[in-house]
Amino acid sequence: MISAIAGHPFNAIQFTGERYPLAEVRLVAPILPTKVIAIGKNYAGHVREMGGDQLPAEPVVFSKPSTSVIGHGEAVAYPEKLSQQVDFEGELAVVIGRLCREVPVERAAEVIFGYTCANDVTARDLQQRDGQWTRAKGFDTFCPLGPWIQTDLDPSDLAITTTVNGEIRQSGRTSQLLHDVPALVAYVSAVMTLIPGDVILTGTPAGVGPLAVGDEVSVGIEGIGTLTNRVVSRD
Amino acid sequence: MISAIAGHPFNAIQFTGERYPLAEVRLVAPILPTKVIAIGKNYAGHVREMGGDQLPAEPVVFSKPSTSVIGHGEAVAYPEKLSQQVDFEGELAVVIGRLCREVPVERAAEVIFGYTCANDVTARDLQQRDGQWTRAKGFDTFCPLGPWIQTDLDPSDLAITTTVNGEIRQSGRTSQLLHDVPALVAYVSAVMTLIPGDVILTGTPAGVGPLAVGDEVSVGIEGIGTLTNRVVSRD
Repeated sequence: MISAIAGHPFNAIQFTGERYPLAEVRLVAPILPTKVIAIGKNYAGHVREMGGDQLPAEPVVFSKPSTSVIGHGEAVAYPEKLSQQVDFEGELAVVIGRLCREVPVERAAEVIFGYTCANDVTARDLQQRDGQWTRAKGFDTFCPLGPWIQTDLDPSDLAITTTVNGEIRQSGRTSQLLHDVPALVAYVSAVMTLIPGDVILTGTPAGVGPLAVGDEVSVGIEGIGTLTNRVVSRD
Repeated sequence: MISAIAGHPFNAIQFTGERYPLAEVRLVAPILPTKVIAIGKNYAGHVREMGGDQLPAEPVVFSKPSTSVIGHGEAVAYPEKLSQQVDFEGELAVVIGRLCREVPVERAAEVIFGYTCANDVTARDLQQRDGQWTRAKGFDTFCPLGPWIQTDLDPSDLAITTTVNGEIRQSGRTSQLLHDVPALVAYVSAVMTLIPGDVILTGTPAGVGPLAVGDEVSVGIEGIGTLTNRVVSRD
């Protein structure tokens, strides 16, 4: 059951008393971030599968535009005119709760509102051709987030699983992150001010692979839930 | 003199009748974009000075976060703890006026609200080390925009000049753009929806170079005006 709240969830929560069965509610993206900062090459297994022989000493930072964000149950639009290989990348997403910058590692928990599942959908062919990843990862609908934000969670050792049409394709644990959640919050906020609702995607484990129109892709994270999206043609 | 308007400048403009001398007004960034999309390597002279021997066949797309935007007269903060080379890059900025996607080249003018000056401030040492440019170009204050938006302008052949402490460092013309304004609007909007207020930076001509704390850097564009910012220490 879903309990309705009054006002914005980033403030103190007041319940209205209204309750709805989950199946009768359409979920939208749990946040509209001013920015989505994403981290590349943050699981050793994924670095290896992408042909890398060296682990990055520092997090690899890129970004996805707010226009790429969709919610649970919304469709990923495959841009067939521009890309012939669109990959899923299941990831743990950190949702920022406080205006902050230069956050020390040991205080990162204070600025985190909660966690959700993300799919860092990537036009792999364009990523390899462009050098910069902004276009390949920036298409409309290429950042599914959801199904909701879990506010009471220790992110340090959670199972993360991506399935395509019910078949397991990625299976990792957040304990395998090369740079963990507090380190990423410190690293990113040393550069740019973070605003409530901003999202940091923490990187994807091994097992990324292509999607096809008609596929249903799910990212499930222990203690959060499962984000499911189907793939449709953009054109 | 400045004439005050009622409401949002993206709608029909109504003047309130109030007028102020420019010198008595503090200008802020003329727009708070949901995204700033920037184009790399878009003048042949700059490609060559960066050591490139080949011109890119397609625009190189990256982005700067909204938290990097400041206005005319605000200070660029030099992040001395993280970078020892912060460069200026004077650029023509396109301000989008209509929600749009997949805009054909020949209809680009319909979605453009106007033009302003931009400085794509870049931590050159981090750019070279990181591979991805998001961190190097994403620091708070690294995207001066202004001094205002010029709505009635043909962008195809404008002089663009960057000075540091009054000395000319960049001097180009927008006619030298490898991919011109309509081509960039079409290219970017083929990937991502553009929202009123979003900004496309069109690339920098030859002559980029380092800034030091205490410098005053100005980007002037024919038919628009001059964007001036001083450099202060972040720490």
